[in-house]
Amino acid sequence: MSLQPLIRVYRNELLENVIPFWEKHSVDTRNGGFWNCLDRDGSRYDTRKYMWLNGRQTWMFSKLYRTVEARPAWLDIARNGADFLLEKARNADNRVYFSMTEDGKPVQLQRKIFSECFWIMALAEFARASGEERYLKEAKAMLERVWDWSSDLTKVGRPSYSGETPAQSLAIPMILLNLIEEVAGDDRDAYRVEVEECIRRMLLHVHEDTQTVFEIVTPDGQPIHSAEGRVLNPGHAIEAGWFLQHWATHLNRPDLSQTAVNMVRWSYRRGWDPEYGGIFYFLDSEGYSPVQLEWDMKLWWPHCEALYAHLLNYSITGDQSDLDDFMQVHEYSFRHFSDPEYGEWFGYLNRRGEVTHRFKGGPYKGCFHVPRALLLVWKKLETMHTPTSV
Amino acid sequence: MSLQPLIRVYRNELLENVIPFWEKHSVDTRNGGFWNCLDRDGSRYDTRKYMWLNGRQTWMFSKLYRTVEARPAWLDIARNGADFLLEKARNADNRVYFSMTEDGKPVQLQRKIFSECFWIMALAEFARASGEERYLKEAKAMLERVWDWSSDLTKVGRPSYSGETPAQSLAIPMILLNLIEEVAGDDRDAYRVEVEECIRRMLLHVHEDTQTVFEIVTPDGQPIHSAEGRVLNPGHAIEAGWFLQHWATHLNRPDLSQTAVNMVRWSYRRGWDPEYGGIFYFLDSEGYSPVQLEWDMKLWWPHCEALYAHLLNYSITGDQSDLDDFMQVHEYSFRHFSDPEYGEWFGYLNRRGEVTHRFKGGPYKGCFHVPRALLLVWKKLETMHTPTSV
Repeated sequence: MSLQPLIRVYRNELLENVIPFWEKHSVDTRNGGFWNCLDRDGSRYDTRKYMWLNGRQTWMFSKLYRTVEARPAWLDIARNGADFLLEKARNADNRVYFSMTEDGKPVQLQRKIFSECFWIMALAEFARASGEERYLKEAKAMLERVWDWSSDLTKVGRPSYSGETPAQSLAIPMILLNLIEEVAGDDRDAYRVEVEECIRRMLLHVHEDTQTVFEIVTPDGQPIHSAEGRVLNPGHAIEAGWFLQHWATHLNRPDLSQTAVNMVRWSYRRGWDPEYGGIFYFLDSEGYSPVQLEWDMKLWWPHCEALYAHLLNYSITGDQSDLDDFMQVHEYSFRHFSDPEYGEWFGYLNRRGEVTHRFKGGPYKGCFHVPRALLLVWKKLETMHTPTSV
Repeated sequence: MSLQPLIRVYRNELLENVIPFWEKHSVDTRNGGFWNCLDRDGSRYDTRKYMWLNGRQTWMFSKLYRTVEARPAWLDIARNGADFLLEKARNADNRVYFSMTEDGKPVQLQRKIFSECFWIMALAEFARASGEERYLKEAKAMLERVWDWSSDLTKVGRPSYSGETPAQSLAIPMILLNLIEEVAGDDRDAYRVEVEECIRRMLLHVHEDTQTVFEIVTPDGQPIHSAEGRVLNPGHAIEAGWFLQHWATHLNRPDLSQTAVNMVRWSYRRGWDPEYGGIFYFLDSEGYSPVQLEWDMKLWWPHCEALYAHLLNYSITGDQSDLDDFMQVHEYSFRHFSDPEYGEWFGYLNRRGEVTHRFKGGPYKGCFHVPRALLLVWKKLETMHTPTSV
């Protein structure tokens, strides 16, 4: 089988099935910003706006404009998000709200840095798409603040108690590494120290001896012997793998590249459900029953991450096993998540692969993982030229 | 069919299957308090202690000692919990931690009042079991504080934002009503004003026109038109129903009693899964897809609440339909949740009724809903004497 025909599959899924859904249903031109709670057919079941998703959608349309086609409508949509984020989404301390009313009144602020991270991604990419430098300046200023906060989350109001096990979380260095890639653009040397620090911290989570990528570890990288310490989130580790792979490539470091390949392979093989297919949401590294109620569900985003991560691996290693993994998750994803009838993908399946939540957008699902993966896979396939037989 | 044989079923399930599990596996005599994270066979998969569950287990063993049999071992277990709660579980502001290390160092504090509520329940019931008044005095002092905090959660650190819809939550008046019943004992008149206020606020959630019990409503009882406002939690509404029924009986108010009967019937019938049986965890009042990932799971506690609530209804109304509902949930629960092999009940099933989480105790499941329901049903059956045919 040649991979060539898949170029059209991914392009069409992105441009004809997924992006039109968001263009048509999510854009609030009156208030600015994007509605996120969209039912299967795109109708709104709630008007609240989630800033993670407003940031991510702004990033996505800016990226499409810049890398697919300079459609004025896409830039308008991106601007609709960027200006809402810039003008309404921050409080006086430069914290970004988690959720807001549709007209931009605050509803919720998290004691986490992720709203700020997606705000940065959005403004950096919009600056490049629009050519308006002031957005990049804002993004860089916020990145400096987030870098500072990330080393001590009490700065964003997180309390600290004497019984807590000192721990560091994979989520922080991995999102910062991806953010730096987005903000730096071609000027990667500007963040050399920060990049090395993120890589150092990410590698603490990668345990070769047990082929495990832990979500949290002690500050010197030891496993934490508790239910929390044993949590595996295969989709998250797979995503971390391709974030790291990008930097391994930029920095031309084959050892780091091999580690990134391993992160994806180990996490995927441990996370794949041998009985019903699909990637589990959470596992326990010692095989205990995870405490998360949704542990055995199959979510759209780990599959999106795996699509690109496997293909990226394959493009580097040429190993048949990486291609097989890509094809396995490709087939599972298009069969279970895609919705040709109304566009976009379903987000939530039970263990057996049955759709449990009919909506396309919700508080944590927006215009991001599906179109990002489709775009990345499409563009990667185009660079791979040579037809490959399986 | 006579209900008479069920007296033995419930008594045996409580005293031979459920309570021995907790006696054997949960009691930390060295540090005091109870371990909560217990695998199917009772082995510990985590040592963290959860104060909701430490409070509830202390209450349970005190109640068993006082109403089933004055076994010294039960009072010892209750004291093991009560003293941990009294000596270790509070901070300097009299807030009760959500979780702690096994030796009593704080790990997490919620911006909610529920840890304090279960602390109060525990100490009040232990005071009665032990005859030691000082525990009751502590419980009453905490109840005063919680009453004050409950009217304005910013007092426990909950932030407030301009975009929030003013709302009141069913959880607060219902837990306070139950707490007052526990703390007041026979001296019910001492809290007359507070009881009336709790009843007034609970009734705002009960909408006769649509036969709906909302989790949150506006302060004057109107439905809130958002995904959050449409949330139904049938098990919670069923529990609220029997809490209210107890007061309707104490106060001899037939209208209130009928409302309490309705709360249970409406919520159960809307919550019952016609396809696979069992009570859904969450629903949307307008039939949208709930945003909670676990909405279609079948949890142990709504079924425990329904067991007692239906039987209580039947003991009041004599209606065959209440008895049918009781028998339906009885059969479902004993078939799916009970674990004669290792004791206690499983907590989490998928929509089809398959066990998804093998542990018996976790951060939110302890020695409480199962034994409380078994005890309440057993004792209620004993008062109902007359064999009934179905």
